[in-house]
Amino acid sequence: MLSLNSMTNIFPHKHLLSSSQLSRSDILTITSRANEFISNGISAAHRYDLLRGKTVVSAFFEGSTRTKLSFELAARRLGADVLSFTASASSLSKGESLIDTLNTIDAMGVDIWLVRHSHSGAVELMSNFSHCAFLNAGDGQHQHPTQGLLDILTMLQHFGELDGKNICIVGDILHSRVARSTATLLQTLGANVGFLAPGTLLPHDYSHWNITLLKTIDAAVEWADGLNILRIQRERMEGGLLPSLEEYSQFYGVKMIHLQSKPNLLIMHPGPVNYGVEIDHDVAHATQSLIQKQVTNGVAIRMAVMALLAENFDRK
Amino acid sequence: MLSLNSMTNIFPHKHLLSSSQLSRSDILTITSRANEFISNGISAAHRYDLLRGKTVVSAFFEGSTRTKLSFELAARRLGADVLSFTASASSLSKGESLIDTLNTIDAMGVDIWLVRHSHSGAVELMSNFSHCAFLNAGDGQHQHPTQGLLDILTMLQHFGELDGKNICIVGDILHSRVARSTATLLQTLGANVGFLAPGTLLPHDYSHWNITLLKTIDAAVEWADGLNILRIQRERMEGGLLPSLEEYSQFYGVKMIHLQSKPNLLIMHPGPVNYGVEIDHDVAHATQSLIQKQVTNGVAIRMAVMALLAENFDRK
Amino acid sequence: MLSLNSMTNIFPHKHLLSSSQLSRSDILTITSRANEFISNGISAAHRYDLLRGKTVVSAFFEGSTRTKLSFELAARRLGADVLSFTASASSLSKGESLIDTLNTIDAMGVDIWLVRHSHSGAVELMSNFSHCAFLNAGDGQHQHPTQGLLDILTMLQHFGELDGKNICIVGDILHSRVARSTATLLQTLGANVGFLAPGTLLPHDYSHWNITLLKTIDAAVEWADGLNILRIQRERMEGGLLPSLEEYSQFYGVKMIHLQSKPNLLIMHPGPVNYGVEIDHDVAHATQSLIQKQVTNGVAIRMAVMALLAENFDRK
Repeated sequence: MLSLNSMTNIFPHKHLLSSSQLSRSDILTITSRANEFISNGISAAHRYDLLRGKTVVSAFFEGSTRTKLSFELAARRLGADVLSFTASASSLSKGESLIDTLNTIDAMGVDIWLVRHSHSGAVELMSNFSHCAFLNAGDGQHQHPTQGLLDILTMLQHFGELDGKNICIVGDILHSRVARSTATLLQTLGANVGFLAPGTLLPHDYSHWNITLLKTIDAAVEWADGLNILRIQRERMEGGLLPSLEEYSQFYGVKMIHLQSKPNLLIMHPGPVNYGVEIDHDVAHATQSLIQKQVTNGVAIRMAVMALLAENFDRK
Repeated sequence: MLSLNSMTNIFPHKHLLSSSQLSRSDILTITSRANEFISNGISAAHRYDLLRGKTVVSAFFEGSTRTKLSFELAARRLGADVLSFTASASSLSKGESLIDTLNTIDAMGVDIWLVRHSHSGAVELMSNFSHCAFLNAGDGQHQHPTQGLLDILTMLQHFGELDGKNICIVGDILHSRVARSTATLLQTLGANVGFLAPGTLLPHDYSHWNITLLKTIDAAVEWADGLNILRIQRERMEGGLLPSLEEYSQFYGVKMIHLQSKPNLLIMHPGPVNYGVEIDHDVAHATQSLIQKQVTNGVAIRMAVMALLAENFDRK
Repeated sequence: MLSLNSMTNIFPHKHLLSSSQLSRSDILTITSRANEFISNGISAAHRYDLLRGKTVVSAFFEGSTRTKLSFELAARRLGADVLSFTASASSLSKGESLIDTLNTIDAMGVDIWLVRHSHSGAVELMSNFSHCAFLNAGDGQHQHPTQGLLDILTMLQHFGELDGKNICIVGDILHSRVARSTATLLQTLGANVGFLAPGTLLPHDYSHWNITLLKTIDAAVEWADGLNILRIQRERMEGGLLPSLEEYSQFYGVKMIHLQSKPNLLIMHPGPVNYGVEIDHDVAHATQSLIQKQVTNGVAIRMAVMALLAENFDRK
């Protein structure tokens, strides 16, 4: 018989593919587990055997330093055996199909896949052809649920709860899997979500998202308890979606004047930062900025999700 | 004094460079050791300390996902400390010679080299300049002995023994180290080896190989107890050796009609598969297909070979 | 209370950035610790828990096989959790700044950075923005202190002490961080340093270095107790700094005739070697050549430095 404590910690999902699959209770199960890891310590001096005897494959079909290191650190600190491969190093270049690669590595004996892929839906597709658990580490412009969860954890640590809080996502919402992942989680926890973006970088269907559309950075600062500021990709300008970085910075960039006008305003950014474009250097390093804390929380969130997925294996 | 059991398990070779060095007894020593690992379990939950305190260098001078992951997984599950490097990441591009790289890494204190190299004979050359044990993970068009051994293990598990069995290798035999490795092992175990290939993809000296030349896929299916189907490299067409993939598929591709005409026919393929070219998707996923089992067996075979090589260290 | 033995082993530096920061006592602390590791054994069979619970990041922003493997082996044999990333695999290509990458990885919870970077001073810059310990694994043409220390260890093992010994550095001193690192350490230990190089490959300020300038390879052989021979980069010729490799070899290359004229002459080279250019193949493989021993000593030196840096953490 499970104790009450264990029962509340049950994670009723085989995979973590999207923020939209998570109920309020799921989100709080993950964040409270992450907070437990942080309390106990998440450095290499604190090893947990929760994934001992499990093999985790980190499969990044799209480049990333931060997320890959964060996931692999998290897996190792849980005691997993971690295999790592990147697309360019793989034989995918020889025309091997994604599903064939999946089946082959599965046949070597693995348990959890951490997958980043440039195509939206690729991770869910993979999960349909495997008996393993899948953790979406970012698929195209679709989802990046652990990034959303680490944003939520960071805000929960600060605000205590998110009901009724106003959080504005600023920047290239159209192309951002971070925006999609975080916005859904915020709404599930009862927060009000705002968007601030040039019209060319807003999703066409934003009116269905039940969000508050802010028109200027000043209005966003006034409305919001916290800003989640997205990275501006320089490629957007080459694509004609932005006139210039200077103009973007002038109308949408967060500057010290905004922090001065609202000293309690929370600043978050998934990194890497373009200083002087979407956010000024001083803002990113101000006491209101939780950017470094987001990174630390990322390791804890990934540990929490992997631990919960692994407990479901053992329950079967 | 060694017990009878231990004596039969002695592997009288310092290296595994080629299938042709293996006697019937050697092959059975390796496959029975691999079967023992499979019985005991080869997932991360089953760790063996047979290579504890040994350093294994995985040196792939030619790209590969499957084989590299399989070898490194095998080494780690035996408790080895695994170093990994690939040629493009190495200073070989600065003009450093292969033997210099070998000597340098040897001087850091390693025990077993796993080497893939695009030049036939490169691994044997390296073994002449080192005190370490070498395991050939594929050298040019020459040999890939653990691939041959995993094919043999898969067939032994299915047939019990190979004496008198008819196994046909289908496809680009000329350029295939897999074909060379498997054919030799099959003949050592008393199987009859058949070849089916377009004339441009047959070795010029095939008449010395003591093989049965099949002329059509229908004849091969009729003759064989099992088909070992090779991957068709698209580069062969650019080289003028094949008129078109469509024509290849028509005359040499294995289709469901063949399985229907011979329901006991065993299907094997070293991967990655070109579906619809050398083998139809349904054939690759039929119950007669042992392709996934070959991959699992690959981990066990590599564990077995490394364990046997390491026991020879300790015996000295 | 510390025992005398422990006190003499205190390493009074948070980082190892440059050979010039090391006193005579510091150098001997490091080399004696390295000799202890060698006596106890530095293969994978000999694991030390001195970095257990510590995370070491190996960050090579410039390619290298030898040094990267050597550092990572050393860290693992001390029981560290080793993260590895290379610049090309990182998101630095997306315009992420060096300091941002540093801060992000620091926030994941690391202790020691091993950094190679193509810009002189980059490692010191990083150390100013982090609470971690930094070990310079080569920065531009500036410093490569563990290479210098392994050269010193190799000479100390051979000569017992270096006071009054004559050591000549031969080759491309202008562009060599090895020359800078080793020369400083030699002088700190009381050795006389000689330089032999074409005028185009001598540092412009060599007269401030308090060195003996040798004019010919014959004069250098006659003067020296040991030669530290540098690799000639083929790019130097394209840059017009060298007329031809043949001419370089004729006037500066070390040949068997030199060893025959002075049988006790010590030969060292940091590798990789251009045989027939700066050193003949037979010289590199003669009994006077300590090139392989340098590599083995490199692992021991890196273990010693990391162990000493880690002890300083615990002391705080």
